[in-house]
Amino acid sequence: MPVSVLQKKIDAIARNARTASRLLADVPQAKVNACLLAMASLLDEQKTGILRANRKDVALAVKKNLPGPMIERLTLSDKTFESMKRGLVEVAALSAPAGERFDERTRPNGLKIFKMRVPIGVIAIIYESRPNVTVDAASLCLKSGNGVILRGGSEAFFTNKALAAQFSVACENSGLPRAAIQLVPTTERKAIDLLLHKDEDIDLVIPRGGEGLIRAVVEKSRIPVIKHYKGVCHVFVSRNADMAKAVAIAVNAKVQRPSVCNAMETLLLDAALPDDSKKRIIEALILDGVRIFGDPAARKLVKGIERASEADWFAEYLDLRLAVRVVDGVNAAIAHINTYGSRHTDAIVTESKDEADMFLRLVDSSSVMHNASTRFSDGGEYGMGAEIGISTDKLHARGPMGLADLTTYKWIVEGNGQIRQ
Amino acid sequence: MPVSVLQKKIDAIARNARTASRLLADVPQAKVNACLLAMASLLDEQKTGILRANRKDVALAVKKNLPGPMIERLTLSDKTFESMKRGLVEVAALSAPAGERFDERTRPNGLKIFKMRVPIGVIAIIYESRPNVTVDAASLCLKSGNGVILRGGSEAFFTNKALAAQFSVACENSGLPRAAIQLVPTTERKAIDLLLHKDEDIDLVIPRGGEGLIRAVVEKSRIPVIKHYKGVCHVFVSRNADMAKAVAIAVNAKVQRPSVCNAMETLLLDAALPDDSKKRIIEALILDGVRIFGDPAARKLVKGIERASEADWFAEYLDLRLAVRVVDGVNAAIAHINTYGSRHTDAIVTESKDEADMFLRLVDSSSVMHNASTRFSDGGEYGMGAEIGISTDKLHARGPMGLADLTTYKWIVEGNGQIRQ
Repeated sequence: MPVSVLQKKIDAIARNARTASRLLADVPQAKVNACLLAMASLLDEQKTGILRANRKDVALAVKKNLPGPMIERLTLSDKTFESMKRGLVEVAALSAPAGERFDERTRPNGLKIFKMRVPIGVIAIIYESRPNVTVDAASLCLKSGNGVILRGGSEAFFTNKALAAQFSVACENSGLPRAAIQLVPTTERKAIDLLLHKDEDIDLVIPRGGEGLIRAVVEKSRIPVIKHYKGVCHVFVSRNADMAKAVAIAVNAKVQRPSVCNAMETLLLDAALPDDSKKRIIEALILDGVRIFGDPAARKLVKGIERASEADWFAEYLDLRLAVRVVDGVNAAIAHINTYGSRHTDAIVTESKDEADMFLRLVDSSSVMHNASTRFSDGGEYGMGAEIGISTDKLHARGPMGLADLTTYKWIVEGNGQIRQ
Repeated sequence: MPVSVLQKKIDAIARNARTASRLLADVPQAKVNACLLAMASLLDEQKTGILRANRKDVALAVKKNLPGPMIERLTLSDKTFESMKRGLVEVAALSAPAGERFDERTRPNGLKIFKMRVPIGVIAIIYESRPNVTVDAASLCLKSGNGVILRGGSEAFFTNKALAAQFSVACENSGLPRAAIQLVPTTERKAIDLLLHKDEDIDLVIPRGGEGLIRAVVEKSRIPVIKHYKGVCHVFVSRNADMAKAVAIAVNAKVQRPSVCNAMETLLLDAALPDDSKKRIIEALILDGVRIFGDPAARKLVKGIERASEADWFAEYLDLRLAVRVVDGVNAAIAHINTYGSRHTDAIVTESKDEADMFLRLVDSSSVMHNASTRFSDGGEYGMGAEIGISTDKLHARGPMGLADLTTYKWIVEGNGQIRQ
C-alpha cells in the first residue's frame, strides 16, 4: 500500500476511535455489559468462520516454517474459545471504575472541587502472536469506557480480523459505536509507525509482547506507553529466616510455573545463614530439576553448581535455570536487587520485622514481598478481577494493572458564580 | 565538547542521580526540610554572588539582542529572591506525600496487600528562561523524595549554575546526597538529546516552557514526559444562565490575568439567549478593553466585532483578544470545545443542574467547571499547597499537579509463608 494511502487509513482509524470514545463516555454500563455478553455468544455462533480464518493463519505459518511454539500460541483450540468466553462474562460482571468521585474538598470561597474517574479515551494495543489478546484486551478497554485500536501480529492477521469483526458486530447490536473496536487492516510494519504518531487522537499505547517489540514501540512513540518489561525477580533468604518457609517459597517461586514473569530468577542467600541451611534450599531446588548457576561461595556448598557469569545476574531464564548468590546481609541483597533486578517483584524471607521493613522500603520494585512467593504478583491474586498486564513503569500504573488503571480523572469544580480576586 | 565526552558526562549525571535517589528514599523528612530552609538562608547569604552570575547572563542577552520580555524574565530582582525564599519555606512546611498507605486488602489466603506511596525516583526538568524554576522545581522534587536533574535555558546558564551550586551545598550541609540536585553543566543542545535517552536512570521528564520546547522533548524522549501544553479555555453561557454570574465570570476569566493558560480564549453564547443578554456580556468585555473576533451571528449583535477565522477557534491569544461564537445549545458547545479546545479548563454558566451535569460529564478536559471562572484552575486554588505545573496529559496526572503527583506507589505484600497453588 502506498504510504499516502496507508496514512489516510491510519488517520481515519484514529479519528473514528476518538469520535467513538466520546460517544462511549455517554453510554450506560448496561449496554457495555450487553455488548460483552453478545460477543461471548458470537464466539459460539461464529466459531466455524473464526476457526476457518485461524486455519488460514496456521497454514501460512507452517508454510513459512515459523517456530513450533509460535504456531502453538497462534492456534485456536476449544480451550481458547472457552477462556475468551469466560473472560468476557467475568469482565461484564465487574463493577465499572468510571464515575467514581474522590479527593473531594470545599474551598474557603465555597467552591466544591473533586476528581471524577473517567475513561482514558483511546487506547492502542500492539501485540504479538496470541489472537485471544484481541478479545481479552478489547473487553477490558471497552468495560472501562475506552475506544480501542488493535494491532496484532502479522502471523495472526486473519484470526484477529475475524475476532475483531465479530466484536464490532457485538458493539453495533448493543448500541455502542461500531468504531469502539477497530483492527488495523494491514500487516505492514509502517502502519505501527504511523499509529504511534497519532498523539492527538490516541491517548495511550500498551505493547504486549517481547522486549524487542516494547523497545521498538518506545523508540518511535509520541504517545505515552505503558511498558511490561521482563521480570528478573529475586528471593532473599535472610539469616533470620524460618527455613521451612524459605524452602517452600524458593521452590514455589522457581518451580511452580517457571515460564512467567513473576517466577524467581535469582536466589540471594545471606552469608550468615548456616551452611546446612543454604544447602537445604539449594538441594530442594535441584531435586525439583532446577539447574543452578552460582557465585564461588554458592559453588562451594553443593557439587555440580555451574559458574555464574555477570550476565546471569541480569538473566530472565523463564525456565528451570536459577542464579544463586551469597550476599552479606540485607543491605547487600537490596544493593544487588536494585543493580541487577528489573523492578518487577522481589521477596525477603525473614522473621525480623525491622529487616523486612528495610527491604520493603528500599527495594525499588513494583511489588515487594515479605514471606510470600513472588508468584503472587498478579492482578487476580491481588483481587483486581482482571488484569491487562504487569507494568514495570513507574508512571500512571505500577505492577499488576486492572480496570481502574485504564481510567484517568478530571477535576470537577462546582461554584455559584465565584470569580478570582 | 566532543560527543563522546558529553555522553560520559550525561551518563555520570544520570547514574549519580539514580544513586542519590536511592539514598533519598532512606532520608528522614526533617533533613529534607532542613535542606530547603538552608537553601532559603543561602539565597540571602550568597545573594551577591548569585546576582553577579545573573548580571553576566543579562549582559550576554543584551549583547545578543534577545527580546525585551526574555531579558525581563531572566533578570533576578529582590522580588524574585523573596518569592524563591517564600516558596522554599512553604514547601518545607507541607506534609510529605511519600509513605502513605492506600488500597489495603486482605486476601482469602491471608496475604495483606496494600499500595505505598513512594518517590518516582529521578526527575529531569527541562525549562526555558526563568531561573527561579531552578529553585522552585528542585524544591518540589526534593520534598517528594526525588533526585532532580535540571537543564535550564542557555541564556540563564550562569544564574542557574550559581543557584544549583548553592542547592547542592544546602543538600550536603543537611545530610542529603549532593547529587540529589544536579544541573547539566553545558549549554549544548545535544546534551538534551542524550539526557532523553537515559531511560534506565531517569524516570520522568517535565518540560516547562513553550509548545516548541515541549514538542521537541516529546519527539526525542524515551522517558515518560508529562506535558503542559497550551490552554484554549472556554466559557459557555447557556440559555439557563444567571446573567449577573455570566457577565462576572466571562469578564474575570478573560480580563483578570489574560497572559496565563487558564484565562478564557473563546466565549460560547447559547443561540437561545435573548440578544440583549448576549450584547450585555460582549459590551462588558469591550468596556474592559477586550478585542473581539466573532462568528457572523456574534458580529450582528455589536458593532465593531472583527471577523473570526477558523484559526481563531484554536487560538491561545494570552492577551486581551477573545473569540466569540454563537452555538445552538449545550450539545453544540460541548462539540465545539472537544473539537477546538486544548483539554485544559472549560466552564458552563447555567442554573440548570441537568445541563451542567451533561457539560461536566462530556467535556473532555482536565478541569470542567460549573458557574465558576476558569481562572481557578490552579494548584493553589485547588488547595494543593504547591504546584509544579498544569498537566494537559491524561496519564499519571491531569490538571494542576502537586507534590503527590511527583510520587508513584509500590505494592507491598505481607505474608507468613504463603506459596501459590
